[in-house]
Amino acid sequence: MTTELGLIAKYFSRPAKRALLGVGDDCALLPGSSACTAISTDTLVEGIHFFADVDPKTLGHKALAVNLSDLAAMGATPRFFTLALTLPRVDDDWLSQFSAGLFALADQFQIELVGGDTTRGPLSITITALGELNAGDALRRSGARAGDDVWVSGCLGGAALALKQLLAQGTHAATDVDLRTRLETPQPRIDLGKRLTALANAAIDLSDGLLADLNHIARQSALSATIEWSTLPIHPALKQEGMLVQQACALAGGDDYELCFTAPPQQREAIGRLSNDLGIALTRIGSFTTGVAQVRVIDQDGTDVKLDATGFDHFANQP
Amino acid sequence: MTTELGLIAKYFSRPAKRALLGVGDDCALLPGSSACTAISTDTLVEGIHFFADVDPKTLGHKALAVNLSDLAAMGATPRFFTLALTLPRVDDDWLSQFSAGLFALADQFQIELVGGDTTRGPLSITITALGELNAGDALRRSGARAGDDVWVSGCLGGAALALKQLLAQGTHAATDVDLRTRLETPQPRIDLGKRLTALANAAIDLSDGLLADLNHIARQSALSATIEWSTLPIHPALKQEGMLVQQACALAGGDDYELCFTAPPQQREAIGRLSNDLGIALTRIGSFTTGVAQVRVIDQDGTDVKLDATGFDHFANQP
Repeated sequence: MTTELGLIAKYFSRPAKRALLGVGDDCALLPGSSACTAISTDTLVEGIHFFADVDPKTLGHKALAVNLSDLAAMGATPRFFTLALTLPRVDDDWLSQFSAGLFALADQFQIELVGGDTTRGPLSITITALGELNAGDALRRSGARAGDDVWVSGCLGGAALALKQLLAQGTHAATDVDLRTRLETPQPRIDLGKRLTALANAAIDLSDGLLADLNHIARQSALSATIEWSTLPIHPALKQEGMLVQQACALAGGDDYELCFTAPPQQREAIGRLSNDLGIALTRIGSFTTGVAQVRVIDQDGTDVKLDATGFDHFANQP
Repeated sequence: MTTELGLIAKYFSRPAKRALLGVGDDCALLPGSSACTAISTDTLVEGIHFFADVDPKTLGHKALAVNLSDLAAMGATPRFFTLALTLPRVDDDWLSQFSAGLFALADQFQIELVGGDTTRGPLSITITALGELNAGDALRRSGARAGDDVWVSGCLGGAALALKQLLAQGTHAATDVDLRTRLETPQPRIDLGKRLTALANAAIDLSDGLLADLNHIARQSALSATIEWSTLPIHPALKQEGMLVQQACALAGGDDYELCFTAPPQQREAIGRLSNDLGIALTRIGSFTTGVAQVRVIDQDGTDVKLDATGFDHFANQP
């Protein structure tokens, strides 16, 4: 186990900052707090969530980003995380780049690595992230109310389009750089999430696609959502694609890691100011009403958008 | 992702008890506390930590047990855990048994599953466990003092001997039942760890073998340990084996998940009473002295036990 300990020490041991005891004992020790703790776990597996030839630096970023995105969707402030890293072999260069990408993002949000486990096996990364917030502030999926507007941050479908291009070209090199950034180094909306605790009723991060994720809010809030297709802030590069691809990427494409949230109409002005403050587009795309928990997408004339199943199947069973 | 959510709901969703919000949102929410939080992460990978034909019920037990053992080694009370489960396919029967084993142990120690992620890929399980304790009570690896006795709980080498038999026979069926229990369903020493916070200076759980794990205490406490071979409480079945196998299993065999701890000699009587109270053997096996951080093993006449490298190599590169 010397190798394992050597690895941890070389790339992942840093002096504890806020932690009372960091990496290197049976457990890390975290200070108590009067606020509550938000905790999230996500796994990335090679061949499912990323390609074998992915840049390890962006992989380190993304493995933490997907967890930070969950904390953002609750409105929590990131505090601590643990890393479980399963590696087929010890590769100094790979670990150096992976840890650089991981810690660059960790430092950006001042979240501290406090423990982990390194094992041999097929490449996969599990991160558990802990954040802090007042329990009453949490943006739960069950918090939406009838009459709430539905909002999304940033733009939609860029990550899915990047994945489509990667799958078509079989290489990273040929894909549009901005699109690759959307797929590989998503920016968790931490500041937005924290500010939304004062404005929004419910929130979720977009990891599985707008329809699937919004459906979680609808189901857990026992309400129906109606989305207007023409209002969706789809990624500029996506506008050059056919309608099937646009719908597949913007409605069912995952990995955007934007926030989707609901807020009463009287918060529209405040949300507009927040958008200006943070320099993040916040777009109103629909509303919640009473009724059977479901999500409808309508066209400008109010007719239901027929979602072509083949559009979604395009991404089925792909990484 | 319906399958994933279906799986989580079917096998792993339980109503939140102490958690403010359990499985099913972006994060779980845990109540704040004035005590500090101990956090531990461990991964089990098929082919590395367990055989493909392992009983899923015992696997569910062990995946949680190895994390609880880390909490025990700090003296913490288990509170919450997350589960990241990577599965090659959805197998109802497997999941039913795995979750039964997992929750039987979770219920025994009243630790609550509060989140997780289920993904497709080569079978592996990562659990992150959180416990609670007063920071001043924590049994850190760095806490040993010169003059401390070294103690171990239970008996040593049973898990390694079971692994040896399994490797020789290539099947689970033929291995001694008690030995298999040692390997597959270790009992985390939670109650012992909590009681030791008042008596011991340092503790570690035995996952990598006595020498390797005791060496962590020696190194982090900057002291030397001397262990007397004749005092070691080796597993009864091991006494029928040759000396090389005895030494390999008791000194370098992993997976026993007993506690090794250090305490001042004036605590000997109290530790004896604790052993009676809990019905767990606690055996004094050596002591700590000043000097270069290392671990020596001596025979009854005081000579160093020569550890035959081939004895240890027997287990190298094996699961």
